[in-house]
Amino acid sequence: MRDESGTVVASGLEGVVATETRLSSVDGEAGELIIAGFPVEELASRASFEETVYLLWHDALPDSGQLAAFARELSGARMLAPATLDLLRAAAAGGVDPMDALRMAAGTMNLGVTPHAEALALVAGVPTIVAAYWRLMCGEEPVAPNPALGHTANYLYMLDGEEPGEEAVRALETYLNAAVDHGMNASTFAARVIISTRSDIVSAVVGAIGALKGPLHGGAPGPALDVVFEIGEASRAGRVLREKLERGERLMGFGHRIYRVRDPRADVLAAAAERLYAAGGDGELYELALEVEEAALRLLAEHRPGRNLQTNVEFFTALLLHGLGLPTQLFSPTFAASRVAGWTAHCFEQQALDRIIRPQSAYVGPRDREWVPLERR
Amino acid sequence: MRDESGTVVASGLEGVVATETRLSSVDGEAGELIIAGFPVEELASRASFEETVYLLWHDALPDSGQLAAFARELSGARMLAPATLDLLRAAAAGGVDPMDALRMAAGTMNLGVTPHAEALALVAGVPTIVAAYWRLMCGEEPVAPNPALGHTANYLYMLDGEEPGEEAVRALETYLNAAVDHGMNASTFAARVIISTRSDIVSAVVGAIGALKGPLHGGAPGPALDVVFEIGEASRAGRVLREKLERGERLMGFGHRIYRVRDPRADVLAAAAERLYAAGGDGELYELALEVEEAALRLLAEHRPGRNLQTNVEFFTALLLHGLGLPTQLFSPTFAASRVAGWTAHCFEQQALDRIIRPQSAYVGPRDREWVPLERR
Repeated sequence: MRDESGTVVASGLEGVVATETRLSSVDGEAGELIIAGFPVEELASRASFEETVYLLWHDALPDSGQLAAFARELSGARMLAPATLDLLRAAAAGGVDPMDALRMAAGTMNLGVTPHAEALALVAGVPTIVAAYWRLMCGEEPVAPNPALGHTANYLYMLDGEEPGEEAVRALETYLNAAVDHGMNASTFAARVIISTRSDIVSAVVGAIGALKGPLHGGAPGPALDVVFEIGEASRAGRVLREKLERGERLMGFGHRIYRVRDPRADVLAAAAERLYAAGGDGELYELALEVEEAALRLLAEHRPGRNLQTNVEFFTALLLHGLGLPTQLFSPTFAASRVAGWTAHCFEQQALDRIIRPQSAYVGPRDREWVPLERR
Repeated sequence: MRDESGTVVASGLEGVVATETRLSSVDGEAGELIIAGFPVEELASRASFEETVYLLWHDALPDSGQLAAFARELSGARMLAPATLDLLRAAAAGGVDPMDALRMAAGTMNLGVTPHAEALALVAGVPTIVAAYWRLMCGEEPVAPNPALGHTANYLYMLDGEEPGEEAVRALETYLNAAVDHGMNASTFAARVIISTRSDIVSAVVGAIGALKGPLHGGAPGPALDVVFEIGEASRAGRVLREKLERGERLMGFGHRIYRVRDPRADVLAAAAERLYAAGGDGELYELALEVEEAALRLLAEHRPGRNLQTNVEFFTALLLHGLGLPTQLFSPTFAASRVAGWTAHCFEQQALDRIIRPQSAYVGPRDREWVPLERR
């Protein structure tokens, strides 16, 4: 991995540590995820999202005065500028994908905001953008944010105009906390590269949203439940799954690039989903999903021996978000509504470090081309 | 640079080769820049920008049929969507910085465009955005693109509504060609990280614009002439520069992070600026700039011996763009109008490679924090 001149050659940067961070640690062998010092199991089901954001930004949980002040600041930053809403209307009329619409609208979040308040505007504004865009796509008017509600409850409120129940809020809050940061993933890295030139946080987060959108990014829970919907009823699970495995297909919802044991977030979200469905909702789908999971794990152990493929975080995320009534198209934007807190925290960390991230490239093209006038080509 | 587990630790990724490329090669020791096989001196003053873009996208110069077809495609993609213009109006009303306005508007460039045509829309659209935004900032209506003009002539036309002279077009074309690509700089790298997740080209270019905006990026010619303006008349040059050097100030316009000898682009742009000012314009400023340069090089050799500080590309770029009548605030956006061709070409190269760019981070925070309920904090 080192050439004759001593330069490190690392295509894709695999195995290269680009930076240190205090924000999260991913240990795929041990199945461990630490978020700002807390094992994810310790944090996700207890914290409000406001507490998690504060923790990432300040490396400590807020006391009650700090939390109240921070919640007020966030809540005060939820409204979108009229130009942002106009852009969302035009995007909806043009049938733009929700992730592209989110990227476009997030790019306008420094309209009328001081640099100091950009991170706040982004964390507060992403749910407003996502909810407003969804309603516009459905031909409905956006619901204005309700300052009396917490961050998570207000997101659900802006989606359907009704105050959500406590169980729904707790379920979504657990997801937002669990997905908030995950080491040096591609979107977080994109944000750090951008801010490392001393650019601004809006530019960095917009770049991160663009990276998150790509299907190789990982973490997008969209397709994880597709196999459950395809199977439709428990008696078909074994046959459908076996056919897929025999055709060599990958089962979405199982296995993870990094985790060699069970993803710690999967347990947290499985428990959250269980509580959510116990409180109401599409119980039949929940039961079916668990039966599909059981069949899949059994068949994977048989067909892919030695791989130890476990149910991944996307499976339970999709189950949980579906239970909250979110359409599949909003799964990735909702992931962004969580991860934006991690991105902004990484921006702060990179700003404090103040060192440009800039690797080299190796030139493999020709060297001595000579100009040929157009008429002789 | 390698820790005990064999992981490469490279803060800022300095000295790490992240990818191979056929697009450009920078040799700072030899003072050599190759653009898609051509030494920059061979290409910049001869090619039209359309030819340079075609070269980067196709690894060959177009023949006359290909060039005519490509010029037509680009020219047909210059108009902005109404929603993009509306956004620029709102940004101008809000006093948004031109680079932020460019980032916002570029983010909307996939409105109504097929993925195939995104790169075309971006290369064609960036000058339209920059020119429209500048006119809106000045309280004037944008000038619609003129399909009868080439890419570079049309940019100048959209700025002031008058068809530019041949010398002006040649001067700007030479700059756009010379600045089009420069190895793995931070903005190009940001674009490659984003597209490496299989995201789209608009997302990648928007991230790149965000990175380019930062003052550590390099290449931005904005401040390079400030010292010339500050000096004002040749007789003051020696004294002002000596005082600056004695105070330990850096002289903008001299020295480069990579080039240890003269930047090959500086020669190309010095010659282009000479021709431009010979054809008319602010001849006094041009003479003053050359006298300041001479004094600066003499004093730098004296005050910073052994550093071999040379006039850099930004100095001659600023002189050239000033000679074209461009205001300083448009220098960076005009840089983007050139580099967008490099970014899109890197996106195509990364798409063909289809490998995610994702390094690791090293966690340096605490590990076993325990949850403390709010009332006990």
